[in-house]
Amino acid sequence: MRAVVLKRFPDGIPCSADFAVVPAPPPKVVIDGVRIQIRFLSLDPYLRGVISGRHMGHSMALGDVVPGSGVGEVVESMSADFAPGDWVQGEFGWREEAVVVASQLRRLPIGIAPSTALGVLGMPGLTAYAGVNDIVQPREGETIVVSAPLGPVGSTVAQLARRVGARVVGIAGGARKCELALSVLGFDDCIDYRSDDFVAALHRACPNRIDAYFDNVGGRVLEAALGHLNLRARVALCGLIDQYNKAERPPGPNLGPVIAARATLTGLVVYDHFHRLPAMLDELVPLVKSGELKYLEDIAHGIESTPAAFAKLMRGENIGKALVAL
Amino acid sequence: MRAVVLKRFPDGIPCSADFAVVPAPPPKVVIDGVRIQIRFLSLDPYLRGVISGRHMGHSMALGDVVPGSGVGEVVESMSADFAPGDWVQGEFGWREEAVVVASQLRRLPIGIAPSTALGVLGMPGLTAYAGVNDIVQPREGETIVVSAPLGPVGSTVAQLARRVGARVVGIAGGARKCELALSVLGFDDCIDYRSDDFVAALHRACPNRIDAYFDNVGGRVLEAALGHLNLRARVALCGLIDQYNKAERPPGPNLGPVIAARATLTGLVVYDHFHRLPAMLDELVPLVKSGELKYLEDIAHGIESTPAAFAKLMRGENIGKALVAL
Repeated sequence: MRAVVLKRFPDGIPCSADFAVVPAPPPKVVIDGVRIQIRFLSLDPYLRGVISGRHMGHSMALGDVVPGSGVGEVVESMSADFAPGDWVQGEFGWREEAVVVASQLRRLPIGIAPSTALGVLGMPGLTAYAGVNDIVQPREGETIVVSAPLGPVGSTVAQLARRVGARVVGIAGGARKCELALSVLGFDDCIDYRSDDFVAALHRACPNRIDAYFDNVGGRVLEAALGHLNLRARVALCGLIDQYNKAERPPGPNLGPVIAARATLTGLVVYDHFHRLPAMLDELVPLVKSGELKYLEDIAHGIESTPAAFAKLMRGENIGKALVAL
Repeated sequence: MRAVVLKRFPDGIPCSADFAVVPAPPPKVVIDGVRIQIRFLSLDPYLRGVISGRHMGHSMALGDVVPGSGVGEVVESMSADFAPGDWVQGEFGWREEAVVVASQLRRLPIGIAPSTALGVLGMPGLTAYAGVNDIVQPREGETIVVSAPLGPVGSTVAQLARRVGARVVGIAGGARKCELALSVLGFDDCIDYRSDDFVAALHRACPNRIDAYFDNVGGRVLEAALGHLNLRARVALCGLIDQYNKAERPPGPNLGPVIAARATLTGLVVYDHFHRLPAMLDELVPLVKSGELKYLEDIAHGIESTPAAFAKLMRGENIGKALVAL
């Protein structure tokens, strides 16, 4: 059994050589413990902040196994709650096999692909669910803009907003991502922030301005959206992918347009909303089963591919939820 | 009769030579018209934005009389609603005498100093009232931070917050302003943002962090406050004095701390709240009459002193509401 450890602190965008795949035999299973054969590792942008010690107080040392969520099958159990063959989700870290206490495990919904428990039906989906219900609050006919639209958060926000009749515009990096947002995820429009006339294109795509913006990225994408808000627009501040690879925190957008629009910007952290997971699953599992709620996955294979897959994610080259299948 | 006109567009902080005091005889009074002998002109930071065409779409041309609020006495009336001797408030511009239609006038509350209709009982007071009720929402025992604490907005926000039992900390420029915030306006503490250890001093003054921040200034004062927010803190974005004199809009604060604190930032524009003026006056007039609600005024004398008084305001050297007595 192997795990991925931090070999050196990345300088800017992580690369494979920042990590090492090492033997890591898990401990014996004791009372209340469960051994899991991990089937999918979740790769998430927030881990870049954890690695550099900037994520909500979490940090890691050289040689530590990289933390992260996963799903897998129970192969040995000393808990009455789980039996071999059960599919579970937990915070296993980047490893092939884990031993955890039963109370830390979540049983997967029946009849859906296990990998969705790390994306649309996991923490990213819960982020989207909380953000849509609490902050974005889309209404019929409104214009909702979403950045990182192919990811599990953005794609879920967009589809939930469209279900109530909002017009949804994505902001993505590159023509291929924009095309997928339209053809697979049902966006009404999608703007390439790398294009020369990005700001003008955003204005054209939102002729009635922006009623709500769900931000995953910060930087000039956030700035462009703030510059085109409607009166009393809502903005969910959910992530700052634009700066996760930077050593220094860059300045933010000028807030004059926020005042002029009487807009509200609200920070969103999914950790506040774990108690709402059952309500989220009640609403979203049927939509995933029926195919009404789409999702994209970018799957690498084998523990040894994890560092490169994470580097790809942090370069923004993934298409959809980044996973490693083991 | 004289008025103040814009002679050239200020480069940075305005100076007296940017304006000219010129003869400006007002027109004859016609039906529904009222002639007012102006007694106080209001000088407000937002006018800097109007002059440079950046304030909510308002702008002005060279030679225009500078706009602005004032109070005065009716000296001639062709309206049944006003008689000579009545005290009124209106948007007269920087002039000694004005003729306006009666519907544009507001009668002053009885028994209070007329100048307060331009400060604590006028637009600034309404700004504070709306911001406290809608955004700051102070509760007993909370820590509320207010920038520009001697001005009519900040001082009113602070005192309304203290009335419900909040601890109120000001952020001002210079030791003298800080001393006045404590001795006259009842702030619990006040920090000088010009001091070398400003950020550390703010942290010491707010050992339980900041539950709400009312921002009039932007810049590094806003950045410092955002860096010390409590979970789910509220921030009212009301002004950006820090940048009113700058030709380019500077970047804003990094918004990572807003996400980490799950804070809410809301733009506040008083124009949305004019319908609440009667409710504000019902609450604040008795407090001003009884002396419970304090205010500071910085009064220049004579129309010819107006350009210099405005320049002083835009250098941040005024102590309290900037007025010109005519």
